[in-house]
Amino acid sequence: MTESTFDFIRNNMAGTPFHQWLLPELVAVSDEESSVTVRLVIRPELGNSAERTDLHGGIVAALIDIAGHAAAAAKVRHSVPTIDMRVDYLRPANGTEIIAVATVVKLGRTISLVDTRLTNDQNKLVAVGRASYVTG
Amino acid sequence: MTESTFDFIRNNMAGTPFHQWLLPELVAVSDEESSVTVRLVIRPELGNSAERTDLHGGIVAALIDIAGHAAAAAKVRHSVPTIDMRVDYLRPANGTEIIAVATVVKLGRTISLVDTRLTNDQNKLVAVGRASYVTG
Amino acid sequence: MTESTFDFIRNNMAGTPFHQWLLPELVAVSDEESSVTVRLVIRPELGNSAERTDLHGGIVAALIDIAGHAAAAAKVRHSVPTIDMRVDYLRPANGTEIIAVATVVKLGRTISLVDTRLTNDQNKLVAVGRASYVTG
Amino acid sequence: MTESTFDFIRNNMAGTPFHQWLLPELVAVSDEESSVTVRLVIRPELGNSAERTDLHGGIVAALIDIAGHAAAAAKVRHSVPTIDMRVDYLRPANGTEIIAVATVVKLGRTISLVDTRLTNDQNKLVAVGRASYVTG
Repeated sequence: MTESTFDFIRNNMAGTPFHQWLLPELVAVSDEESSVTVRLVIRPELGNSAERTDLHGGIVAALIDIAGHAAAAAKVRHSVPTIDMRVDYLRPANGTEIIAVATVVKLGRTISLVDTRLTNDQNKLVAVGRASYVTG
Repeated sequence: MTESTFDFIRNNMAGTPFHQWLLPELVAVSDEESSVTVRLVIRPELGNSAERTDLHGGIVAALIDIAGHAAAAAKVRHSVPTIDMRVDYLRPANGTEIIAVATVVKLGRTISLVDTRLTNDQNKLVAVGRASYVTG
Repeated sequence: MTESTFDFIRNNMAGTPFHQWLLPELVAVSDEESSVTVRLVIRPELGNSAERTDLHGGIVAALIDIAGHAAAAAKVRHSVPTIDMRVDYLRPANGTEIIAVATVVKLGRTISLVDTRLTNDQNKLVAVGRASYVTG
Repeated sequence: MTESTFDFIRNNMAGTPFHQWLLPELVAVSDEESSVTVRLVIRPELGNSAERTDLHGGIVAALIDIAGHAAAAAKVRHSVPTIDMRVDYLRPANGTEIIAVATVVKLGRTISLVDTRLTNDQNKLVAVGRASYVTG
């Protein structure tokens, strides 16, 4: 039986040692929209400060990389190296969880571009990312 | 007695919950060169794969954010919000440790720019980052 | 009588010496969508090659800067300095004209972020841009 | 007789219609340093304002694209498509001329990264750029 794209990405994410600590959770894969949705539950050890629940900027960047990679990998059914990534921090990423939606903007023969939007549990945009991957 | 800039940055880094897991180590602060040096020892749980020691791309991005923040904070003696960051992945970040050297390119009244270079234990450049911070 | 936002942006664009050669044309300003639309007619002297109509990559970047600036300036009613800009080139920008739609992603007290999409006369996406501006 | 790299880049730049208006001038090519130097004389029609000599941000971006392309093309001896570019604006780019020095940071089999620094006639850094090119 053929593995679904959802299962392929979930397994791809689960096999990564860093993810076993970070615990990003694959929520959805949409082939029509070329997008994936990843949830990250906020825990104190992901934080920037002992006083607040704000995610560390490096964790925000990591989540953008993870969701972007998943969106590109879902299209080509294999892991893809990241060429480069831009992250824009818009608001503190706090609350109970962060939802990342990554969408393939251009699926190229060699290089693909993915946009990622991170929202908090109030559905406010907290960060956006844009990354290119070698998909050829 | 006045706290040295090195101690200020070391304490600033130590107080961050995420760092207590990641364990970035402040090696040097140079006021003349407007730079800081941060070492990250590679551990399996920071990895991208169970088979290799390659750091996860999100950890590479986090290290760039941490070193860049330290370089900017060393100039103004307080924490500074990241506006945005670009990361370029050049080679797998593997071996025993990664050294990040972050240098303030422009210290502005409102906004500052920092460049960061990551090298492996063979002194090969594995990634570069560029980030802007609110320093005003 | 109050000058409309459309007229303010049109006049702001018209007063720029470089624009008098490039000839970007303001098509629309939408306050609800926080967006502006700018058209650029492709001329041979904007090109990358004598053989094709492809816009030069520098002209693509300039159009992204112009449309992004207009979207941010429309919100605050004054010119705004660009902090930084990312441009991703997706396809050759050729045909008869390029349409740029720039949308404010976040209007901040100090810093704002704008996304810009460039499409050709076949409505194909040729480039995307993301830029931050000092709006405070 | 073999065409020198300097002559190859100079001819490559001269054949571009947009350059015949912009007039970027190739000053030097260094194979050892993997760098090229390009001069742009500031003229009123490149400006952002009728009152000052500040270069338009789009012209700054174009110069970064041109110098970056030249540095990458000098290594592989053919034109190379730009994947993406980041531009950081540090100071107004004014005075009599701007000097762009572009250096290849990583020459990859498929993708290469180039850093570009722009200085004014007082040798002050006015902008930096970072762009990736398909060199494979």
